[in-house]
Amino acid sequence: MKQTASVTSQQVSNLPAKNTINKRIILHSRPIGMPSTANFSLEEGRVPMPNDNQVLLRTLYLSLDPYMRGRMSAAESYAAPVALNDVMVGGTVSIVVASLNVNYQTGDLVISLNGWQEYALSDGNDLYKLSNVRIQQAPSLSGYLGVLGMPGFTAYMGLLEIGQPKANETVVVAAASGAVGAVVGQIAKLKGCKVIGVAGGQDKCAYVVNDLGFDLCLDHHAPDFATQLANACSKGIDIYFESVGGKVFDAVLPLLNTNARIPVCGMIASYNNTSLPRGPDRLGLLMSIILRKSIKMQGFIISDYYAQHYPAFVAQMSDWLAHDKIKFIEDITEGLEQAPQAFIGLLMGKNFGKAIVRVSQY
Amino acid sequence: MKQTASVTSQQVSNLPAKNTINKRIILHSRPIGMPSTANFSLEEGRVPMPNDNQVLLRTLYLSLDPYMRGRMSAAESYAAPVALNDVMVGGTVSIVVASLNVNYQTGDLVISLNGWQEYALSDGNDLYKLSNVRIQQAPSLSGYLGVLGMPGFTAYMGLLEIGQPKANETVVVAAASGAVGAVVGQIAKLKGCKVIGVAGGQDKCAYVVNDLGFDLCLDHHAPDFATQLANACSKGIDIYFESVGGKVFDAVLPLLNTNARIPVCGMIASYNNTSLPRGPDRLGLLMSIILRKSIKMQGFIISDYYAQHYPAFVAQMSDWLAHDKIKFIEDITEGLEQAPQAFIGLLMGKNFGKAIVRVSQY
Repeated sequence: MKQTASVTSQQVSNLPAKNTINKRIILHSRPIGMPSTANFSLEEGRVPMPNDNQVLLRTLYLSLDPYMRGRMSAAESYAAPVALNDVMVGGTVSIVVASLNVNYQTGDLVISLNGWQEYALSDGNDLYKLSNVRIQQAPSLSGYLGVLGMPGFTAYMGLLEIGQPKANETVVVAAASGAVGAVVGQIAKLKGCKVIGVAGGQDKCAYVVNDLGFDLCLDHHAPDFATQLANACSKGIDIYFESVGGKVFDAVLPLLNTNARIPVCGMIASYNNTSLPRGPDRLGLLMSIILRKSIKMQGFIISDYYAQHYPAFVAQMSDWLAHDKIKFIEDITEGLEQAPQAFIGLLMGKNFGKAIVRVSQY
Repeated sequence: MKQTASVTSQQVSNLPAKNTINKRIILHSRPIGMPSTANFSLEEGRVPMPNDNQVLLRTLYLSLDPYMRGRMSAAESYAAPVALNDVMVGGTVSIVVASLNVNYQTGDLVISLNGWQEYALSDGNDLYKLSNVRIQQAPSLSGYLGVLGMPGFTAYMGLLEIGQPKANETVVVAAASGAVGAVVGQIAKLKGCKVIGVAGGQDKCAYVVNDLGFDLCLDHHAPDFATQLANACSKGIDIYFESVGGKVFDAVLPLLNTNARIPVCGMIASYNNTSLPRGPDRLGLLMSIILRKSIKMQGFIISDYYAQHYPAFVAQMSDWLAHDKIKFIEDITEGLEQAPQAFIGLLMGKNFGKAIVRVSQY
């Protein structure tokens, strides 16, 4: 519903100076396999001016997430691909620097979808005002891109709605030190489950056990990883939280219990694949196992859940954070120019904690 | 809970004559690929006598079902395999011919698990007395092995609990003329869906459309089957009821809509496979599609649902049958000796309607 703007001169007076530059990172070419920095291009343009009902946002933090690899491809997906020479998409925390929208004032902090750029316009419909969510309890603004944002919400909905963990069940979490996996495992522990993490490297595994409190974490680089996983899951696997695919799933598959649940929120191991792996074809095998063991495998797109569940999630997660029941770390890169390299590092598993770019100072 | 038997002499007086022969079909050897009659052996033995708390049952009808192929293999499954030289397992409708169990009287009709034999003992715990289920409304005793029995119940739970059909959705049903598929499609029509069947041969397809009332039925033998299916599903597929696998699923996969549901109750196309098909390996592709399209794929074993849902199902299905809203046909083979050949025909798709063996006269 369109509303007539009633805007004071004060609200538009805070615009950036006329010659302020808006840096943007655009998709220059579509990657084949792993992206390189050559697929991105840094552009400098003018800061756009808000029209009726719009707000102008300055980006404080940009979230880097694996799903962005999918948007760089022209292949069919759950969301349209980024067009060549368009700005890369992405979740952000922003500050309103000018408003012609009655619902927002200069200085408001919002979760937004600015993408990989310093300034962006919005009509307000895709914003989430942080005053709604008890910001005073938030650990930091950037937290709204991680533990309190899309990744944390993905962990929460996928585990609780699809996974439905019960006490004493065995839960295996792929990418356990990542933004989603770290939260999945900690919530599963709060629900009384035995939680086995899988991560790449001993440092990450040590963090997952010592800091996050998982029962165990296995390095998928180990040559005997599958054997280690089988030994760790002596009672089989009741929930496998999938965000990786590839050889981690191959090791999980024979360990799944009857009535196991597999929330599928990502397949990072295959995002850069340019062709299908060699045979034999195990598609029918997977379906046979799903049949024989009454397994539920369910993909989900977290954007479908915001309207109904996000406020309750923020309240619950804020409470857990306030009581120190959920921990998290962030891997913050300084400056928009570094976003492509940081994103490539994310796809390679080089980040340690939620990958975030600080675009400008609060 | 064990009960003390209080049995009248009348109840044990109806035993078959001492020299009555009990014919049994045992698993003689494990098939490799498609079974042959040489995998079975007909044995003649004595009729067993009931002990404390047991009833002696005479088999009236034996159900033949695709899942039995799985029980013939030593491979891990949701149920233990039949041991070599043991009688083949199977659902039956039986009459109590002698009882040392207070809950059953001579003449009681029951759904039982006698397997492929003329007489069997039971302690009563695995029986379902047909007086409980308004037998006067039943179309026939054999119906309790089909539309009112395990296949009909499988259709009902899989479609309604896992599939959750909504009006105007497109539902594709594999093995549409089979005991499960025929019921799935008819219930989906009652729920206001567009229903496309898939069956083997023009006769079956004509039956599915003309008698069962599906909107369309496609012959999977057609060389352009995948194209026909794509044309028929112009709005994509919201529910695919899977009991077949193989090339039918291959044609379905690219047509699945966002939020599609796939109840998996069988994989008959692969039951006789002795090795995995050639590559490429599409396991990861399937999972990527499940992710991208928020698909739910769920296997289920109908035995898990009886305690909670079977009586309500029988009441609902009896009502539909009484009002001529659900139709069914049976393919009845005469005589236990013919069961192996009839079962092989079922795996080859030669039956037309629910495959049943009449073992003895009521």
